[in-house]
Amino acid sequence: MMEMKNKLTITGTFLDEISHDIPSANWGKKEWQRDFDSMKAIGIDTVILIRSGYKDKMTFDSQSLKNVTLLRSAYIDLVDLFLLESERCGMDFFFGLYDSGKFWINGEYQKEIELNLRLTEEVIEKYGDRKAFKGWYASHELTMYDDKQLKMYQELADHLRELKDIPILMSPYVKGKKQFGETISPIEHEKDWDTILSALSGKVDIVAFQDGQVEFSELKEFMEINKKLADKYNLTSWSNIETFERGMPIDFLPIDWRNLRYKIEVAQSINVEKLITFEFSHFMSPNSIYPSAHNLYQRYKEWLDES
Amino acid sequence: MMEMKNKLTITGTFLDEISHDIPSANWGKKEWQRDFDSMKAIGIDTVILIRSGYKDKMTFDSQSLKNVTLLRSAYIDLVDLFLLESERCGMDFFFGLYDSGKFWINGEYQKEIELNLRLTEEVIEKYGDRKAFKGWYASHELTMYDDKQLKMYQELADHLRELKDIPILMSPYVKGKKQFGETISPIEHEKDWDTILSALSGKVDIVAFQDGQVEFSELKEFMEINKKLADKYNLTSWSNIETFERGMPIDFLPIDWRNLRYKIEVAQSINVEKLITFEFSHFMSPNSIYPSAHNLYQRYKEWLDES
Amino acid sequence: MMEMKNKLTITGTFLDEISHDIPSANWGKKEWQRDFDSMKAIGIDTVILIRSGYKDKMTFDSQSLKNVTLLRSAYIDLVDLFLLESERCGMDFFFGLYDSGKFWINGEYQKEIELNLRLTEEVIEKYGDRKAFKGWYASHELTMYDDKQLKMYQELADHLRELKDIPILMSPYVKGKKQFGETISPIEHEKDWDTILSALSGKVDIVAFQDGQVEFSELKEFMEINKKLADKYNLTSWSNIETFERGMPIDFLPIDWRNLRYKIEVAQSINVEKLITFEFSHFMSPNSIYPSAHNLYQRYKEWLDES
Repeated sequence: MMEMKNKLTITGTFLDEISHDIPSANWGKKEWQRDFDSMKAIGIDTVILIRSGYKDKMTFDSQSLKNVTLLRSAYIDLVDLFLLESERCGMDFFFGLYDSGKFWINGEYQKEIELNLRLTEEVIEKYGDRKAFKGWYASHELTMYDDKQLKMYQELADHLRELKDIPILMSPYVKGKKQFGETISPIEHEKDWDTILSALSGKVDIVAFQDGQVEFSELKEFMEINKKLADKYNLTSWSNIETFERGMPIDFLPIDWRNLRYKIEVAQSINVEKLITFEFSHFMSPNSIYPSAHNLYQRYKEWLDES
Repeated sequence: MMEMKNKLTITGTFLDEISHDIPSANWGKKEWQRDFDSMKAIGIDTVILIRSGYKDKMTFDSQSLKNVTLLRSAYIDLVDLFLLESERCGMDFFFGLYDSGKFWINGEYQKEIELNLRLTEEVIEKYGDRKAFKGWYASHELTMYDDKQLKMYQELADHLRELKDIPILMSPYVKGKKQFGETISPIEHEKDWDTILSALSGKVDIVAFQDGQVEFSELKEFMEINKKLADKYNLTSWSNIETFERGMPIDFLPIDWRNLRYKIEVAQSINVEKLITFEFSHFMSPNSIYPSAHNLYQRYKEWLDES
Repeated sequence: MMEMKNKLTITGTFLDEISHDIPSANWGKKEWQRDFDSMKAIGIDTVILIRSGYKDKMTFDSQSLKNVTLLRSAYIDLVDLFLLESERCGMDFFFGLYDSGKFWINGEYQKEIELNLRLTEEVIEKYGDRKAFKGWYASHELTMYDDKQLKMYQELADHLRELKDIPILMSPYVKGKKQFGETISPIEHEKDWDTILSALSGKVDIVAFQDGQVEFSELKEFMEINKKLADKYNLTSWSNIETFERGMPIDFLPIDWRNLRYKIEVAQSINVEKLITFEFSHFMSPNSIYPSAHNLYQRYKEWLDES
C-alpha cells in the first residue's frame, strides 16, 4: 500500500476526447479500460469530461444538439463508456457542457445557453440516475471579467442545479505570459476575479484555476490571489495542475517532471483542497501515445512512494 | 477472412520517403517489408511513390537528374525496394515524377519538364519491365487554373503514355480553409476545375482529390463537384482520404478515427471508385513511429470487421 | 568487434536535460544508465553537459547561483549522475556553464560572468577531483562578431583555465538560412569568424560548429572556412553533427538517416578531428522517446558495420 502522508497529490483528471488542440490517441473501449486502471493505481478518484461536444463533434449522439446545429456522428457513446468505467473504478464523473466554439465567441450567448439547457435535460434523462454522475463541469473557459459570460454562467448554473443538485466545477485561466505573450498584472487579475467570483458565489461550487499560463516565478502569487478570492466567496479551491509543457517548439507534450513537481509543491503551500490535471491520459499515463508520459508516470510514482 | 460487404475501403496508399513536411521514420529494408505486410493485411493493393525526388533528394541515384541539377546521394534504391515489395505482395506500383521544388515554382516550366522527360526515360530503361510497374503519378500538385501548369501536365502525360501506356494518376487539392485560411467558393472551384479537367481529358486517367483542406461540413459539396467534373471528362474518380490531422498545434499527426470514418463515408456516398490515402506508413500503420497510428489501425480493422 | 576502418564516426554527444526547446524525456537514474550503455555501444567516449543551468533551472542545487538569481530546485544532482555514468563507461565529461537566458542577452555581461565565476568555483570544489571531469564547455552560443561576447569568453576562459587546466570547448553556429530565413554569405561569415577566433586563440581549445543551420549544398563551403580558421588560430576542429531535423512543421524530431550520413561525409572530407552531436539521447538513441530515433540508431549501426 502506498501511503500519501501529508503530500497533496493529483486525484482528478480531465478526460479529453473532444479536443481542439490535443491529437487523438484513437483509443477504443479496451484502451480506455486499461487507462482507468492506471488512473486508479495512482489514486485518481475524479474524472471530468472536458466537454461533451465541441463545434461539430460530440461525445455521444445528442438529439437535442443535432436539432439546432450541424454535428457529425459520435460513432461511440463516450459518456456511457466513461460512466461505466467510473463506476467500475469507484470514481466521481463530472459532465462537461457543450462548447460551440462559435456562438458565445460571436456574442450569441442566448444560443449557447439554449443549446446547453436542452442538452443537459437530455443528459439527465439518459444518464441522470447513473451512480458515478457526481458533478457538472462548466466547460466555457473564462479569463477576464465579461458581463455576458457571467450571465451565461449564472443562467446555466441555475438550470444545472435544478436538474441535479451536484457540485458545479469551473476551470478558468490566468491571461498569462506563456500563452498570451504579456502577463496581466496580479492586481488586474485580482480585481477582475473579485468581480467574477462575487457574481458566481452560490452558483459555481468549485474553482480550479489552470496553472500553466504564468511563469513559474509568478505562480505562487497568482495562486494565492485565487485561493483568497475563492475563500472570500465560499467557493472550494482546487488547482488544475497541467501535465503538458507550454512554450516549446512542439506544443503540447508531456511536462518535465521537475516542472510538475514544482507546481504541485506551490499548490500545496497555499492549501488548495484537491489537485486535478489536464490531463492524465495523454500526458502522464503509462498508456499514453507519448513515451515521455510513461516516464513521467514512473517519476510521479517514485515521488508518491517517497516518505 | 474479412468480408468487405458494400463498404468502400482504403485500398491504396502513397509511399512518402522523400518528403518536405513529414519526418522520416528511418526505416530500412526489413521495416519496409513488415509494413507492406501490414498494408496487405487490410487490403491495400496499390502503392504510389509520392515523388521520385524532391529538391536535392532522390529515391534512387538517377544519372539523368544528376546531369542537370545538384542532388545528394540516395544511398539506397527505394524504387527497386518498393517494386520488389509490391511484387511480393501483389500490389500495383505507381511511379511519381520528380518535383524540383523550384523550377516550376519560379516559372521555369521547361526545365521541370525536361528533367522529367529524361528521368522517366531512365526509369523505363531501369525498371520499365518490372511486373508491379502499373501506373504513373503526376506528382506536381495543382489547385487552381494555371495555363502553364496545364501545358506541363499535357506534355508530360504525352511522354509518359508513349514510354509506357499505363494509367496516369493525379492528386490535386482544394484551396480550402484548413490550409489557406480562406475557402475558395464551390462555384470558383468548379469553374477552375471544369477548365483544368477539360484540358487534361485523355491525358490524365485518374483524379484523386485530397480531402483534408476543407471543413468537414463542406466536404460533400466539394467531392460532388469533383466527381461530376471527372465524369464529364471521362476521368476515373478516386479519393485521397488523408490519414493525418490538420489544424492542430502539432502538424501532422495521425487523424482521429472518427474524422477518418466520416470522410470515408462521405466519399462512399458520392460513389468514387477507389480510396487511397496519404499515407499509411506514418499515419495508420501498426508499425508507425506514432503510437496513435497503431490505434487507428486497430479502430480501422474493427470497422472493417463489422457487418 | 566492430571495426571503424577509416570512417569518421560520432564519438561525442551533448547531454540535454536543461533545455529551452527539446521536451524532457523524464528519465530517472536507471533510464540514464541504460542510455550511457547505448552510447558506449556505438563508440561514444565524450559527453558534454549542454549547460549546467538555464534561466530558473539547474542540473544540481548550486548555492552560488541561488545567492544571485531566482532558481528552482534541481530535485536530483544530474552533474553527479552524469559523472558517475561517465566514469562507469570510461567517458570524458565536459561541464557546461550556466546560461541565464537574460543577463548577457540584455547586455548585462558582467552579471553573466560573475555568476559563472562563482558557479565554476563551486563546481571545482564539489566535483573538481572527479575522474571523468575532463573538459569545460562554454555554453553561450556565438554566431557573429560581438566585442562584449568575446570579452566574456576571454574572462571566463582565463578563469576556467586557472581553476582546472583542461580543454575548453565551444559550439557556435552559422547564421544560416534554415533557422534565420536568410543566409549570411560565406565571405561575411569568414570575416567575422577570423576576428572571433583570433580573439579566442589560446583561450578556447576546441571549436565544434553546429552544422544544421545552412543548406546541405552550402555545408561544405562553410565547414571548410571553419576548419581553415581554426587551423590558422591553433584551435582543434570538431564538428557538431546535429541529429535532429530542422525546417519541418514539427521541430525538432530525429533526422533522416540520409541527411545525417551526408553531413558526416562532408565533415570527414574536410578532416575535422572528431564528431560530436546534439544529441544522442533524444534523437538517435534506441531508448529515445521518439521511435524514429530507434531506427536511426539501427541505420547508423548498419553503416558502422559496413566495410
